[in-house]
Amino acid sequence: METIRIGVLGASGYTGADLVRLAARHPKAKVAALTANTHAGKTMSEVFPHLFMLELPRLVEWESVDWSGLDAVFCGLPHGTTQEIIAAVLAANPAIKVFDMSADFRLRDTGVYAEWYGHAHRAPDLQKEAVYGLTEFYRDKIRAARLVACPGCYPTAALLALIPLARAGLINAEDIVIDAKSGVSGAGRSLKQNTLFCEAGEGLSPYSVARHRHAPEIEQEIAAAVGASVTVNFTPHLIPMSRGELCTSYLRLKGATADDLRDALASAYRGEPFVHVAAKGVLPQTQNVRGSNYVQIGVFADRIPGRAIVISVLDNLVKGSAGQALQNMNVAFGLEETAGLLQLPLFP
Amino acid sequence: METIRIGVLGASGYTGADLVRLAARHPKAKVAALTANTHAGKTMSEVFPHLFMLELPRLVEWESVDWSGLDAVFCGLPHGTTQEIIAAVLAANPAIKVFDMSADFRLRDTGVYAEWYGHAHRAPDLQKEAVYGLTEFYRDKIRAARLVACPGCYPTAALLALIPLARAGLINAEDIVIDAKSGVSGAGRSLKQNTLFCEAGEGLSPYSVARHRHAPEIEQEIAAAVGASVTVNFTPHLIPMSRGELCTSYLRLKGATADDLRDALASAYRGEPFVHVAAKGVLPQTQNVRGSNYVQIGVFADRIPGRAIVISVLDNLVKGSAGQALQNMNVAFGLEETAGLLQLPLFP
Amino acid sequence: METIRIGVLGASGYTGADLVRLAARHPKAKVAALTANTHAGKTMSEVFPHLFMLELPRLVEWESVDWSGLDAVFCGLPHGTTQEIIAAVLAANPAIKVFDMSADFRLRDTGVYAEWYGHAHRAPDLQKEAVYGLTEFYRDKIRAARLVACPGCYPTAALLALIPLARAGLINAEDIVIDAKSGVSGAGRSLKQNTLFCEAGEGLSPYSVARHRHAPEIEQEIAAAVGASVTVNFTPHLIPMSRGELCTSYLRLKGATADDLRDALASAYRGEPFVHVAAKGVLPQTQNVRGSNYVQIGVFADRIPGRAIVISVLDNLVKGSAGQALQNMNVAFGLEETAGLLQLPLFP
Amino acid sequence: METIRIGVLGASGYTGADLVRLAARHPKAKVAALTANTHAGKTMSEVFPHLFMLELPRLVEWESVDWSGLDAVFCGLPHGTTQEIIAAVLAANPAIKVFDMSADFRLRDTGVYAEWYGHAHRAPDLQKEAVYGLTEFYRDKIRAARLVACPGCYPTAALLALIPLARAGLINAEDIVIDAKSGVSGAGRSLKQNTLFCEAGEGLSPYSVARHRHAPEIEQEIAAAVGASVTVNFTPHLIPMSRGELCTSYLRLKGATADDLRDALASAYRGEPFVHVAAKGVLPQTQNVRGSNYVQIGVFADRIPGRAIVISVLDNLVKGSAGQALQNMNVAFGLEETAGLLQLPLFP
Repeated sequence: METIRIGVLGASGYTGADLVRLAARHPKAKVAALTANTHAGKTMSEVFPHLFMLELPRLVEWESVDWSGLDAVFCGLPHGTTQEIIAAVLAANPAIKVFDMSADFRLRDTGVYAEWYGHAHRAPDLQKEAVYGLTEFYRDKIRAARLVACPGCYPTAALLALIPLARAGLINAEDIVIDAKSGVSGAGRSLKQNTLFCEAGEGLSPYSVARHRHAPEIEQEIAAAVGASVTVNFTPHLIPMSRGELCTSYLRLKGATADDLRDALASAYRGEPFVHVAAKGVLPQTQNVRGSNYVQIGVFADRIPGRAIVISVLDNLVKGSAGQALQNMNVAFGLEETAGLLQLPLFP
Repeated sequence: METIRIGVLGASGYTGADLVRLAARHPKAKVAALTANTHAGKTMSEVFPHLFMLELPRLVEWESVDWSGLDAVFCGLPHGTTQEIIAAVLAANPAIKVFDMSADFRLRDTGVYAEWYGHAHRAPDLQKEAVYGLTEFYRDKIRAARLVACPGCYPTAALLALIPLARAGLINAEDIVIDAKSGVSGAGRSLKQNTLFCEAGEGLSPYSVARHRHAPEIEQEIAAAVGASVTVNFTPHLIPMSRGELCTSYLRLKGATADDLRDALASAYRGEPFVHVAAKGVLPQTQNVRGSNYVQIGVFADRIPGRAIVISVLDNLVKGSAGQALQNMNVAFGLEETAGLLQLPLFP
Repeated sequence: METIRIGVLGASGYTGADLVRLAARHPKAKVAALTANTHAGKTMSEVFPHLFMLELPRLVEWESVDWSGLDAVFCGLPHGTTQEIIAAVLAANPAIKVFDMSADFRLRDTGVYAEWYGHAHRAPDLQKEAVYGLTEFYRDKIRAARLVACPGCYPTAALLALIPLARAGLINAEDIVIDAKSGVSGAGRSLKQNTLFCEAGEGLSPYSVARHRHAPEIEQEIAAAVGASVTVNFTPHLIPMSRGELCTSYLRLKGATADDLRDALASAYRGEPFVHVAAKGVLPQTQNVRGSNYVQIGVFADRIPGRAIVISVLDNLVKGSAGQALQNMNVAFGLEETAGLLQLPLFP
Repeated sequence: METIRIGVLGASGYTGADLVRLAARHPKAKVAALTANTHAGKTMSEVFPHLFMLELPRLVEWESVDWSGLDAVFCGLPHGTTQEIIAAVLAANPAIKVFDMSADFRLRDTGVYAEWYGHAHRAPDLQKEAVYGLTEFYRDKIRAARLVACPGCYPTAALLALIPLARAGLINAEDIVIDAKSGVSGAGRSLKQNTLFCEAGEGLSPYSVARHRHAPEIEQEIAAAVGASVTVNFTPHLIPMSRGELCTSYLRLKGATADDLRDALASAYRGEPFVHVAAKGVLPQTQNVRGSNYVQIGVFADRIPGRAIVISVLDNLVKGSAGQALQNMNVAFGLEETAGLLQLPLFP
């Protein structure tokens, strides 16, 4: 395939825009369709003025897209809706590969989905074929997948830090506390009072304490790593910055030291292009990955004996969403995995 | 006493400025001396232009102050130095009451001080008479004290949340994880690369992971509450905002529920003018206390059985420093405890 | 009058909240009624959590207020509506004094109002008795007024800098360029995409270039000062901060120097409690007045001969709105003009 | 030439880091030497942790570089010093092409340089051969140049807006008022009190009013455009954001309309890859160009007859510094002018 023709469902949200930002400079992709039902008829630069320099298709309603002309579809729609639309897309063109950035196909157990999202799953058959798109751990399955459920931003940050440790049996999976912090773009572009500049600026707010929908996704993957069901603490906080996410994970060790954890992570990610384990003493910070697909993880000994602290950072819109979706596309289409994703972090 | 004549040692730092901001409108106090050795000779408004409307004494070197004319001295000097200067001040005028906002007299065990601050305590005799200035718990001792060691900002936020729970035996003191977040003013006004706007802005950085000097102070007071030595996890993060501090404390319960914890806190702070326990479901956020002496505490059940989350917020320069120092002055001089401290939070 | 019983129309907006913040600590006022039709039935702390420590009346619909029990009403409602509601309030209790913070009664010429606001004035008779509430220049009329039309935030900042210069004939009124910059709170609390944190943060946007509704208000008062109609340039910009406003006015001099301008301003504001003229070389900045009712004005020579630059700063929610409204209340009720308004700026 | 081997003098500043960010992904360039005398011996990622994923040469003192191995040198050193070091570099290897991002060779008149920088020019002979690096206007000379003096960030933003208008005789060059606003990174990474987060955050400050060193540079180029010496007003303001610059230019028209100005700009920049003229009514904002080499210019009619407002935005570290320097390198080495510079703006 010379060029992958891609469509973006829900292109008027931040993840949609960041996908376009990256895809427009991807050497093998071409943005061929953009949908945004509430903005249908507008140009992308009317909706996102920072894309004024691009020639892009006009926004249309998703119902009017000719799916036969597309190779890959990225979805940044709200949950629930997504299940129905993706089912329709795949019915129209079963050869399309779908990279879903919504929450709709991440939970393998549709009962858990129903419990956390408040309605029955609307495409349970598709759920069965969906592959969880945490690239570093599901690469083989993604290669063959037609529907990739890209992880949430928080789960990506948390799981990249925790899966190798859980798999290696170095930590107690029943005592995981994840204190998470996110920039405001994680809340999306829809109009909400708490994301106004004056509300979120110059202040710090916890939210969804112990009931955020990313918790079951984290638990699903930790459970898969240890072979037993687990319950984690996951407490997110809204930080006065646009991009960036940091998870501080407080862990109880099983006969291991912080250095053991760092070694296990370094070993797990040796050769990975995007996941870097920081040297001892180096502090990850979101500034180090802003605008990029990179992840940085650091490990620290706790003062409480037998405990350690693991800190992981990423850009919620890139490795936490659009970047990882493109990384999965690269894998699924047999391209160089880093194609179009090597932009360096923007600092300051 | 008609008017309390106060002096401020180290008036060119943020805590010094905030003390002047509050003291200048205090009904019973008068700012009578301001020292800042590196800025001696300047007016306060040259150093802090936002105080242009005040008539204030010119900044002088601390050696040139006539201590006999002062009733109360507030100290915002760096650690170590403070011990020597306060000893000299009290030698010059033993009737002065000192409200120290530095770290120098907070640790009752001078051995612990030496371990964390890297030098032997320089005024061990004064240390013996110092009273820990967490007003809500040391009010009686503060009344009679000559030297009040006002707590650090983080310890104030953490301890107001934890002491009542530890005293009541509701939590396991050996499993306390405090994930702390602070605005940049907590790092002071001295020139450091990590507090430049471009470094701290639009990003989030952990720092002093598991080795911040406020940890032993927290441990000292939790230990006093439970009658046994304890080690806590304390992990601070720098947040891109100027003021505000939030501690998310992850606790293991001893046969109690989150509701029990909330009740215990509400009971402990009934009648307290500045410490408010939020109703169930209400989320504390730093925006709620900015610029004020108020503290807000909320309690949440964890998803991990037998655990709870307690969130406390304050303004690090007010209740976390200058405000609490003035509150202690009010107590020590027999004034209304809230005098000069009822400014409401500034939002947005 | 022992205590002035005040009502606030539109208490769920930022100006309403700031009025409550100030009024709640005013020595002679009591908040007796709060209206917010879309939030009727809620407590104020549900709508503004930072006011959790206050005992306040519950929010009600304006139609349900008993106006006979109030002495003063402050209005923070949208334009148009305000005219009708204030007419109704004064019909119900003609003894009430109204301090309107909306735009509805600021333009003396109802034709100009109709031109800029797109509908005919709905209370032209009331307009006739309305007094423009720029306290420093309309104090005498405010004393006797029943309806005070408090100026917009931008006009307050611009006019305090320009009126004395225009009156003294020192500047060419036909060549006034006002480059204005405002924090995001100036846009209010209603949900708009451009005031989301991610849209307004880390960036700078001009808006309403040469067509902002505060222009005719500025022109009305400059015209009054020079006795001839004038057209000014007024170009506002949205700045990534919550509070604060700065006007940089570029002026052509009439035989005067920058020093003459500074002298004229200093002379005009001698004895004024809130308006300060900075010494030569001192740069006004919004940080110097944040959260306070103070204004700072500086004058600078231009490099272009015969031109000067005047810079004025204020807090748009205080002297630019709620603070000035209270200042006018103090004047109208014969109180000390500074009562309840001496809070010092919050920095940092 | 297969690969251009580049060296960066002063790589520990923000412009140095941004040059490395861009050069590291440039298809034809290789970062071969990095100097930073105060950080010599460190790795680049110790100084800029966000570059942790790059293999880069270690920082060295500039005296230890082997200049014979380099093809292009970029200079981000302080003024004055630069003149001496570049003279030494060119003496060591006269075949090197130098792209200077400092102020040292921008002013063709060394007398003007001495007046504004307070010391005699230290390389007047080199000054003679220096070409002013405003790419869009000096492309032909840059192709043949050995020393390119890249413009300051403010002059780039102002001149791209003004030169076509001045050349076409559409504006009165004696009445140009440029109100400029910049993010804090424009002040560099050195430790200064006014660029601390707590000082620059949540506030807005004018600085160097009518005496900023970028004024003579703007005047030099406007004068060249109109063939007569000119004096402009140039008033910069510090904005609480890291990157971005916006110039609002207030202009008096010579028989032209705002639409004429827009047409003249559109015509001047037709085919230019980086400079875009916004359609009527579209507002440029710094968010539209953050992190990119793009410039956006908009034109608006003033309410004062015969006047117009031109607004231009860029990223001060990219088109305002490192990006334009690389653009010039591309020109000087005969590469595609956009090579390595097509990163799209990062929003949000």
